[in-house]
Amino acid sequence: MKLTILGCYAATPRTFTNPTSQVLEIRNHLFLIDCGEGTQVELRRNKVKFSKIKHIFISHLHGDHFYGLVGLISTFRLLNREKELHVYGPKGIKKAITLQLKLANSWTNYPLYFHELESKESQLLFEDEKVSVETIPLKHRIYANGFLFKEKPGERKLNMSAVLKRKIDVVYYKKLKRGMDMTLEDGTVIPNEELTLDPKPPRSYAFCSDTIYKPDNLPQLQGVTVLYHESTFLEAHAKLALPTGHSTAIEAGKMARDAGAQHLILGHYSTRYPDLTLFANEAKTVFDNVLTADDGKVFDFSED
Amino acid sequence: MKLTILGCYAATPRTFTNPTSQVLEIRNHLFLIDCGEGTQVELRRNKVKFSKIKHIFISHLHGDHFYGLVGLISTFRLLNREKELHVYGPKGIKKAITLQLKLANSWTNYPLYFHELESKESQLLFEDEKVSVETIPLKHRIYANGFLFKEKPGERKLNMSAVLKRKIDVVYYKKLKRGMDMTLEDGTVIPNEELTLDPKPPRSYAFCSDTIYKPDNLPQLQGVTVLYHESTFLEAHAKLALPTGHSTAIEAGKMARDAGAQHLILGHYSTRYPDLTLFANEAKTVFDNVLTADDGKVFDFSED
Repeated sequence: MKLTILGCYAATPRTFTNPTSQVLEIRNHLFLIDCGEGTQVELRRNKVKFSKIKHIFISHLHGDHFYGLVGLISTFRLLNREKELHVYGPKGIKKAITLQLKLANSWTNYPLYFHELESKESQLLFEDEKVSVETIPLKHRIYANGFLFKEKPGERKLNMSAVLKRKIDVVYYKKLKRGMDMTLEDGTVIPNEELTLDPKPPRSYAFCSDTIYKPDNLPQLQGVTVLYHESTFLEAHAKLALPTGHSTAIEAGKMARDAGAQHLILGHYSTRYPDLTLFANEAKTVFDNVLTADDGKVFDFSED
Repeated sequence: MKLTILGCYAATPRTFTNPTSQVLEIRNHLFLIDCGEGTQVELRRNKVKFSKIKHIFISHLHGDHFYGLVGLISTFRLLNREKELHVYGPKGIKKAITLQLKLANSWTNYPLYFHELESKESQLLFEDEKVSVETIPLKHRIYANGFLFKEKPGERKLNMSAVLKRKIDVVYYKKLKRGMDMTLEDGTVIPNEELTLDPKPPRSYAFCSDTIYKPDNLPQLQGVTVLYHESTFLEAHAKLALPTGHSTAIEAGKMARDAGAQHLILGHYSTRYPDLTLFANEAKTVFDNVLTADDGKVFDFSED
């Protein structure tokens, strides 16, 4: 599981800070989350093989999370994309994009599917044998969702010393990995647990931006491996958080702590602050394992 | 008259090349011409005081000339702009922008006026005592206009040696500059030409992108000071120009030559070519005074 931050600053794109966009690599999927203006250039700059992106998740329709989408969709056309593309985002996203493509008289030459969201309850958006993606209902100035990416449990691992000792034939290995008990020729049954080991626990990634501090999402987030939570403000401006629909670094820390997350990544910083360590320091007062997102930063959780 | 190139490459924004946008400073106006994705960042990077922009001219609704507009309009709001903003562009531009602002629930806090274009004849878009702006009908894959910016003739300049010799009182200077003949106390009339000199000839700037080679625009362009003309292709790919609605460097050169332009600036290069001098060399086979646009380049025509 690898996360590449293309942009993680609030409000407008600036010379050295990009609006929200990130790429999550999980079980051979490349998911794009949010797509602020300039995302397609950041994908190039960070050498992401962006033709592999098949699913784009848009949290909400503020410009700093969304205005790069139409350009990316157009560029896919110019690059002669053929693979289908799925876009998940708030109701209205389809009209906004298709109107602009229509005005340019340039419809896509690849299948483009919009999955418009309007539910305030969590919904399953995507699922295959390896991974699932569901919405996390957020509360912001406009309708917004976070996204929870979950690996499915992998196959059990062979306990090779036990397997060799019992002289199990290779043809049974696949079935053992799937949990089958072994019946020997003499009728003896060896329970699967004796021959295999638990697989790595499945990992998960929760993206929560933009939102107020919303503890009623905690049940859904319980035990998440990595929580990305917005922290637009420091305590000095805590009063601005609720009216603007944002959170503070400490609130992000509380969400990570109370969800029992393994890691917290902070992001969506207001550009009024000079230094990201200020955010980390405040969040660390309530939660230990704090990381700070920054444009171009890559977080590799392969070993977790 | 000063032209700042924010971007001048065709098709998609890339790591080191920006789509079309430029700022023309003329007689204290700051006009923005086209607004591809990333324009607001390029305005910052090139240190353009972009709060001073009051008029934005959009040639056509292909993404590489237009997808940065909604972000710029949103950023003006975040920067608490109060001055009015006028946007001139093809019919449909208003709906595309306002739909996106509405979805973000963020209308502007400053007056925003759209002037939608659909005429195939040249139209006067803006005029004050110093300058006028009119459309140049282009021919591209979709409806497109270029823009002709013209200074109005300035005041005549005092011929100080003649003025002093004739002992003209200072109170008459303003009227002399406006062309008044001078009647002395004894009734003698001194013709204005004896006391004043011609002002600098008014300068003009024509922006022509994207378009096929379109010589029927030559009457409108006669004597233009600076012609910016797209040259997407070199001769090696001349066959692509007409079907894609573009021009070659030589065609741009012919337009400059036949319009009697003083300077030609080439731009809107296909990114397939490694070197801009290739474009200049081909255009120079038909026209001498060829300049090549490049992102971040500033052309100062104050002395022309």
